[in-house]
Amino acid sequence: MAEMIYLDGVMVALEGARIDPRDRGFLLGDGVFETILYSDGRLLWLDDHLRRLRHSAEVLQLPVPSDFTTLSTDLLALCQQSGHRTGALRLTLTRGVTDGRKIWPVESVPPTIMARVTGLGESRVAAAVHLVTVRSIRRDSQSPLLRIKSLNYGAAILARIEAEQKGGDDGLSLNQGRELTSTSVGNIFMRLDEGWFTPPESVGILAGLARQRLMILLAAEERVLTESDSATARQAFISNSLQLTPVHRLDGRGLEPLSLDSLAERLYR
Amino acid sequence: MAEMIYLDGVMVALEGARIDPRDRGFLLGDGVFETILYSDGRLLWLDDHLRRLRHSAEVLQLPVPSDFTTLSTDLLALCQQSGHRTGALRLTLTRGVTDGRKIWPVESVPPTIMARVTGLGESRVAAAVHLVTVRSIRRDSQSPLLRIKSLNYGAAILARIEAEQKGGDDGLSLNQGRELTSTSVGNIFMRLDEGWFTPPESVGILAGLARQRLMILLAAEERVLTESDSATARQAFISNSLQLTPVHRLDGRGLEPLSLDSLAERLYR
Repeated sequence: MAEMIYLDGVMVALEGARIDPRDRGFLLGDGVFETILYSDGRLLWLDDHLRRLRHSAEVLQLPVPSDFTTLSTDLLALCQQSGHRTGALRLTLTRGVTDGRKIWPVESVPPTIMARVTGLGESRVAAAVHLVTVRSIRRDSQSPLLRIKSLNYGAAILARIEAEQKGGDDGLSLNQGRELTSTSVGNIFMRLDEGWFTPPESVGILAGLARQRLMILLAAEERVLTESDSATARQAFISNSLQLTPVHRLDGRGLEPLSLDSLAERLYR
Repeated sequence: MAEMIYLDGVMVALEGARIDPRDRGFLLGDGVFETILYSDGRLLWLDDHLRRLRHSAEVLQLPVPSDFTTLSTDLLALCQQSGHRTGALRLTLTRGVTDGRKIWPVESVPPTIMARVTGLGESRVAAAVHLVTVRSIRRDSQSPLLRIKSLNYGAAILARIEAEQKGGDDGLSLNQGRELTSTSVGNIFMRLDEGWFTPPESVGILAGLARQRLMILLAAEERVLTESDSATARQAFISNSLQLTPVHRLDGRGLEPLSLDSLAERLYR
């Protein structure tokens, strides 16, 4: 069966689905998104995801529908008819199609809303990764852009490229004060001698939906972490709304093995 | 006549032109672009624009065609048949369409190359603007992303939103050391008591094609500019590849009138 996606209120075949070449998401990264776990017939943390989408949109003064009820129903229907038992629903919202070159101000046009589901394996724990500290880009802890899920993934892509060049799988970014922030795909948790810790929002991170729940499950505390913590951490993992990723090496140093299966089971349910 | 655009090697009607919803430009801002002035039958500074596009792409490890000769011919044909005597050609290059969710590493797929021309007025001097200093976002002077023209315009859009909220038209961004960088659409030139100055690349700017030529035409020098220079500048203007924009007010303070017509005439020819 041809794959279907959700586009501007209707289900359409992916093959024919058309994003306009003038879409501001395509031209200027002018949009926001969420990635939502679909599992066993439901969308996990859906209300929180939609609340965050709305917040992200507000920061960019991006008009959003006043009511997400119909959207929620449509998204679930998309997942159910996808045939995937478990999947990742990517929901993308852009400022829509404008005709001119102006970046701002822009006329108010209907937003583009696109959703697609891709299949996921059953395990919510990914293969362990080698995490390396990113040196080429620093995060600005004050930037409102870091606190929303915008389409601007250039810095994350560059962080990944640098990580790969250093033999790593993912990159851990620092802010301008050399404090640890997050990786290109999620929040970081580190186990130090005193317990589990994760950086506070003030360092310039998007505080993920998994992160807030993990802090409770692990009795983890917020703490400004530095490179000396990286150098002494016993264990570490990365969290996002889809999975937990153990870190087996941090800047080349081997960490203690970490089994996250039972934690993931309690988290993603 | 239906408007035509260039898409992946062919001229197609805009109305039917389709960007795939999986395009990484649309989903992740994973691409680069150039905006080129078309005037009197030619594309100004085309070789320099294509060289910069190639450089931007290389920083993002984005595969580009080895030869731009055919592209150059096609772009010129697009402009000529547009019916515009003067126009802005926007050339967008993305990493193309991948199927998965992964931000990196990604399989190598053909890039998406899209070009569209929009009409411009005959004057290369825009209406004067009120420029205000941006407080909500700082630029990271070290970021490689600031030195290329990527699709990540979120920070520029937020700068504009802040400017508008303060009664301004455009925003002048500072780096983490509070040095002046550039506005959301171009480089800044300021006339101080000693002459014309523009910030050096080291503060974290894309050094524009117009900027390098203007430095010669104006005998302008590079200098690290600060907010105290903003407070005392006599005149200022913004430059990019399409036009010069006089600044009539800077953070609420009126500047001396500035006629840029003859300068623009020497620059854009």
